[in-house]
Amino acid sequence: MDLKKIANETTTTLVSYLTYQAVKVVYEQLDETEPKRAYWLHQFSSSESIKDGDRFIEKLFRERPDLAFRVLTVREALSDSFADFLPDMLRSEMAKSNLKQRSQQLERMTQVSTEGDHPEQQRPSDE
Amino acid sequence: MDLKKIANETTTTLVSYLTYQAVKVVYEQLDETEPKRAYWLHQFSSSESIKDGDRFIEKLFRERPDLAFRVLTVREALSDSFADFLPDMLRSEMAKSNLKQRSQQLERMTQVSTEGDHPEQQRPSDE
Repeated sequence: MDLKKIANETTTTLVSYLTYQAVKVVYEQLDETEPKRAYWLHQFSSSESIKDGDRFIEKLFRERPDLAFRVLTVREALSDSFADFLPDMLRSEMAKSNLKQRSQQLERMTQVSTEGDHPEQQRPSDE
Repeated sequence: MDLKKIANETTTTLVSYLTYQAVKVVYEQLDETEPKRAYWLHQFSSSESIKDGDRFIEKLFRERPDLAFRVLTVREALSDSFADFLPDMLRSEMAKSNLKQRSQQLERMTQVSTEGDHPEQQRPSDE
């Protein structure tokens, strides 16, 4: 397990995801003040994939540098605002999600054994 | 801009992304020791979308609880291992990416003005 590689890939994914959130923020801001530009950004975001945040920004720069600069500013502000909270939020969300999954599975296993003896439904762990 | 909502959505996305990475790790581990189970997990991951990490785990629990438990353990370990580095990595990657985008754009703008006077290529910022 290459932890460093996974950490790097995770960070890149985060940057892309915050680009997507920043585009949404810029859209909402424009929608209140300049509906025409908001509409343009909406059309552009629908036609260009935002999965790769940096490629999206590059394409936006070619079409509307003003909006591209704005998205850069917003995504950096987003990252600055909650980077410090991320570790706690991530750990707590992960723990919550794992607890929920384990409880649900325990429930399913209990139901199976209460409903009768169906050993084939209880695949033994081969860990 | 609803920062709290964005932070929550970002955390959920991170948990899903680490589920995807955990599945990859479990696959690689199995591939070395139990190729048959590795193959099964590969087939399962190809047919079930992993975009929503929790739904993926739920489905995996119904088919192979042993592997689902293992993915839960690995994704929590991943999150624990680099949660504390995430803020710095995110800030640095974001700054690097923004710097790169701004420099590229500066270069494009300079080229345009050097190549001649084509005012229509220099869309003025309407910020």
